[in-house]
Amino acid sequence: MTYVTHLECSGCQRRFPSEQLWNLCPECSRPLLVRYNLTRIRQDINKEMLRHRPMNMWRYREVLPLKDDQHLLTLGEGGTPLHHARQLGALLGAPNLYLKDEGLNPTNSFKARGLAMAVSRAKELGAKTLSIPSAGNAAGAMSAYAALSGLSAFVYMPADVPHPFIAECRALGATVTLVEGLITDCGKIAARRCQEEGHFDVSTLKEPYRLEGKKTMGYELAEQMGWQLPDVIIYPTGGGTGLIGMWKAFQEMEALGWIPEGHRPRMVSVQSEGCAPIVKAFHEGKEHAEVWDNAHTIADGLRVPGAVGDFLMLGVLRESGGTAIAVSDTEMLKACQLLGSTQGIFASPEGGATLAAYQKLLQKNWIDKEEKVVLFITGSGHKYAHLWQESLK
Amino acid sequence: MTYVTHLECSGCQRRFPSEQLWNLCPECSRPLLVRYNLTRIRQDINKEMLRHRPMNMWRYREVLPLKDDQHLLTLGEGGTPLHHARQLGALLGAPNLYLKDEGLNPTNSFKARGLAMAVSRAKELGAKTLSIPSAGNAAGAMSAYAALSGLSAFVYMPADVPHPFIAECRALGATVTLVEGLITDCGKIAARRCQEEGHFDVSTLKEPYRLEGKKTMGYELAEQMGWQLPDVIIYPTGGGTGLIGMWKAFQEMEALGWIPEGHRPRMVSVQSEGCAPIVKAFHEGKEHAEVWDNAHTIADGLRVPGAVGDFLMLGVLRESGGTAIAVSDTEMLKACQLLGSTQGIFASPEGGATLAAYQKLLQKNWIDKEEKVVLFITGSGHKYAHLWQESLK
Repeated sequence: MTYVTHLECSGCQRRFPSEQLWNLCPECSRPLLVRYNLTRIRQDINKEMLRHRPMNMWRYREVLPLKDDQHLLTLGEGGTPLHHARQLGALLGAPNLYLKDEGLNPTNSFKARGLAMAVSRAKELGAKTLSIPSAGNAAGAMSAYAALSGLSAFVYMPADVPHPFIAECRALGATVTLVEGLITDCGKIAARRCQEEGHFDVSTLKEPYRLEGKKTMGYELAEQMGWQLPDVIIYPTGGGTGLIGMWKAFQEMEALGWIPEGHRPRMVSVQSEGCAPIVKAFHEGKEHAEVWDNAHTIADGLRVPGAVGDFLMLGVLRESGGTAIAVSDTEMLKACQLLGSTQGIFASPEGGATLAAYQKLLQKNWIDKEEKVVLFITGSGHKYAHLWQESLK
Repeated sequence: MTYVTHLECSGCQRRFPSEQLWNLCPECSRPLLVRYNLTRIRQDINKEMLRHRPMNMWRYREVLPLKDDQHLLTLGEGGTPLHHARQLGALLGAPNLYLKDEGLNPTNSFKARGLAMAVSRAKELGAKTLSIPSAGNAAGAMSAYAALSGLSAFVYMPADVPHPFIAECRALGATVTLVEGLITDCGKIAARRCQEEGHFDVSTLKEPYRLEGKKTMGYELAEQMGWQLPDVIIYPTGGGTGLIGMWKAFQEMEALGWIPEGHRPRMVSVQSEGCAPIVKAFHEGKEHAEVWDNAHTIADGLRVPGAVGDFLMLGVLRESGGTAIAVSDTEMLKACQLLGSTQGIFASPEGGATLAAYQKLLQKNWIDKEEKVVLFITGSGHKYAHLWQESLK
């Protein structure tokens, strides 16, 4: 049972059949997107029917690309809480501030959504061995679902990634290779080994299905807000698949009649001052981002100097009337402390970055204090405990 | 709105009014238990009515002791997945093995349930400052809910607790005191400071409400299994409140007519070979456990040499026809690796201990391979990444 009709290239718009494994578009090397028969879905279900389904990402089963449920891998991904941040909001004079806590996903980050989907689908389409370059959280998530599926997992991470990320992958049975360099260097080595050994590459946006898992954040947010999207969404972007995925969800939900047309949020990309290629490209009016030299930040998920989906992210920011903003590592940590001490959420620095960005955008009057704003806390701080060692003395 | 009738001492059975703050029984220093008008609850709701409630622990609102919902603190605790462990089961020849993954709670452990309840109720009853001695996970959970409630949090942990536990508490705004010694030493210092400074002590079983939060594991398990309890539950016991709480839930559910009478599981307590007071007392036929000398184990949650609820734990084990068993640190870690690589769950050593115990009890033929068994993975491995450093080289 699937409503998928085909895959469509985000660059050249060529169509490809969905029932085989693909990476990037074989014609133009851009990401492939999954397309559905939304008209038929609209006839078959309505959003009220969701109400009695289990609260995890598979409640949006019709807009997910798996054919046969026997391949569905679940560890409880999705269904994360959306909190009205009353105390933090009171402190900032912002009565309509919300937090989406993705740290409650399996493996402690939103990456679980994308990889539950991608690994399920890879298994369904016959992959035997999976490979991923990762700044950290994606590797843990891939290792978990690979273990559950029985597929072998090869993980490539920067050698200086904090050891909890490595520990997690090893405990989950993955083969970990540490690479001197950044995630882009990991990507090159992973790609070469995939070619040599026939592993399937589940790099973000280099296969079509992680995006589909991540888009469930958009569906879930809409449902949790009573099918009324907020005014602004602030999201930390490394590869940017979360942001791009939510935008795709909003398009689909409009077509399904689940949300009113023309009321989408302004989308904000947050990056680190030490690695802000999207921020730079956005403000320079460029369609693509240049690779960032000497990328450095404590937020490993944001240490992505070049992203294959750069033009898609920039497109979403512009189409939505959004913006892009960089924050410093110190600002991220201060924001984490503020989040923790007012709302009881121990956020990763990427999560803290959204609050730091929100504070800056309030100051600039780019956001009004009355506006309904959602900050995505993309992961928990537990794998980043080393950042708090300073304060331990 | 509350169905609470009174508090009852687990030692001398004296009754106390519930609408004020209590620690241990003022007469005999035993834990106080919350009693409800179960007859009235039975008239007012039935288990079918739960079906459409949000999947978190507050779905069992009628059997939770909060009076006014305005004090209800939630970060998304409860509603954790119950997995049928098909791959692991296949490997062990055990087709009916289940895992309850409590690592998906806020702050990564089952402690969130007890402390969401205790802090909500402490706030409702007028506490201003909270205090907790903890081996690690309880401290993080208390810090989170204290932050959310706006109450001040004082945390006392052994000085040699892994630093992620300390980092989490500090990021959540708690005041952390490191104590040379074990959790029992922390407890003494916390108790003294509570007396001196009027802090409210939320030590496990030293106030009546953490038990009520933890008992929701029992309600949830029953509901997830279609109101049929398993044959055996294996649970890692430090303070033992999880085990005692589930047993209380089973009693209540029988009185409510939610589960059939006389079909409760055999309850198994797992401890570490380096700290096994309950195992020793159980097999020696004692009613109370002696304090364990020189307690040591990598599983911080099991490093509890003496527990105020020892006689309650021992009572549950005996009444249920269960047992108590110790496993070594090495066995725990091997079991964690097995869990991770077959089921994709990165478990804390306490969680791994349940699998190690299961394997031993199969070997002894104490458990039959066909029996329906639930292992409680009480927390995730993310705060224990240092244990995997060995394998990082």
